[in-house]
Amino acid sequence: MGAVKGVKAKRMPRAVREQQMMDAAVHIFGRRGYRAASMDEIAELAGVSKPLVYLYLNSKEELFTACIRREAARLTEAVKAAIEPGLAADRQLWAGLEAFFRHTAENPDGWSVLHRQARTHGEPFAAEVTAMREELSAFVTFLIGAAAREGTPPAPGTVGAGRSGELADRDIEGLAQALVGAAESLAGWANESDKLPAKDAAATLMNFAWTGLGGLMRGERWSPR
Amino acid sequence: MGAVKGVKAKRMPRAVREQQMMDAAVHIFGRRGYRAASMDEIAELAGVSKPLVYLYLNSKEELFTACIRREAARLTEAVKAAIEPGLAADRQLWAGLEAFFRHTAENPDGWSVLHRQARTHGEPFAAEVTAMREELSAFVTFLIGAAAREGTPPAPGTVGAGRSGELADRDIEGLAQALVGAAESLAGWANESDKLPAKDAAATLMNFAWTGLGGLMRGERWSPR
Repeated sequence: MGAVKGVKAKRMPRAVREQQMMDAAVHIFGRRGYRAASMDEIAELAGVSKPLVYLYLNSKEELFTACIRREAARLTEAVKAAIEPGLAADRQLWAGLEAFFRHTAENPDGWSVLHRQARTHGEPFAAEVTAMREELSAFVTFLIGAAAREGTPPAPGTVGAGRSGELADRDIEGLAQALVGAAESLAGWANESDKLPAKDAAATLMNFAWTGLGGLMRGERWSPR
Repeated sequence: MGAVKGVKAKRMPRAVREQQMMDAAVHIFGRRGYRAASMDEIAELAGVSKPLVYLYLNSKEELFTACIRREAARLTEAVKAAIEPGLAADRQLWAGLEAFFRHTAENPDGWSVLHRQARTHGEPFAAEVTAMREELSAFVTFLIGAAAREGTPPAPGTVGAGRSGELADRDIEGLAQALVGAAESLAGWANESDKLPAKDAAATLMNFAWTGLGGLMRGERWSPR
């Protein structure tokens, strides 16, 4: 049995081995942080020798960068996969937010790598996360813009009826930045406190943001009384 | 004249000198980042010798930590000073947000140190910012909770009239986390893009969040149609 296992292990394709190493690395980096993570521990968790980790992934720095790239790609992919382009913009945004919270809740170590570890260890790591963030922000900007154009006209007699509900491009971009920041903050808090299931987090943010955006599109504005 | 200046410089109290050094350090750290910042440049900008900087503030690490603490205290102070406790919760939150955006816009280097530099250079720096963030989050949680209790009853016939507008503690804490994350993200974006004046940033977020919160308190809920 041991021999058979050994043969099996030897025959495992490099790509599969690399993914196993990265699974282990994301787990260790996500929990210990970049500096405290040890290559010994990563190799042990992956069930391979340390020299093999170095042979495949070169250095701790490159392994960490590979983990950030993979986790960023997976998160972006999860969000995009959840969205059906034919739907109304608010439903697309809901689906994207829900996928974001589900993915970050199911992959707490990956989210920790992206949200906490990658940003707290300077360049070049932070730049990888910035690229992902810009992609998601651009997408949210697009959806808010689409929603603003689709905007429900105000019901007669409601606050804001007859007032302009138009949002400037600058406002739309600002709202997208606010929403992305809110989602990041909420995902971090939900994972740490372990109190908020993904669907509830999405609902909380969606209720907060969407009724607000709905109000904006109906021309409602908050102002100091 | 030179001699008089020299005497003046010598007589300058240590506390004043330290503040000048930290002003210079915040400027350099905020623009160059922690690693690229040079103590030579900081000393030159402060108009003192490099040994004096080390004599007063010990090391680059301690100087950076002192800068983070000072900037965090000033930001928290600016937000708190703007708030009149007698006002309604939504006006208090508006005043706090406006002060937050004004302070971060007027002190872009300080905000860069807190939001970008401190977080991207690991512990113990990140922990300093976490402490400030928790203080502001607790305050926002308190205000949202107060606003929820004060909540305007729904006008008869409006959406949500008669439905329960009660928010659970968990929702309130989640909303506060979302709002703090949104404010951080928006302040960073506003400073980088140089497009959004502080008052507009506060108004954008307040409109977004407050009409949303208003809707929540009237019992309105967004749900996928």
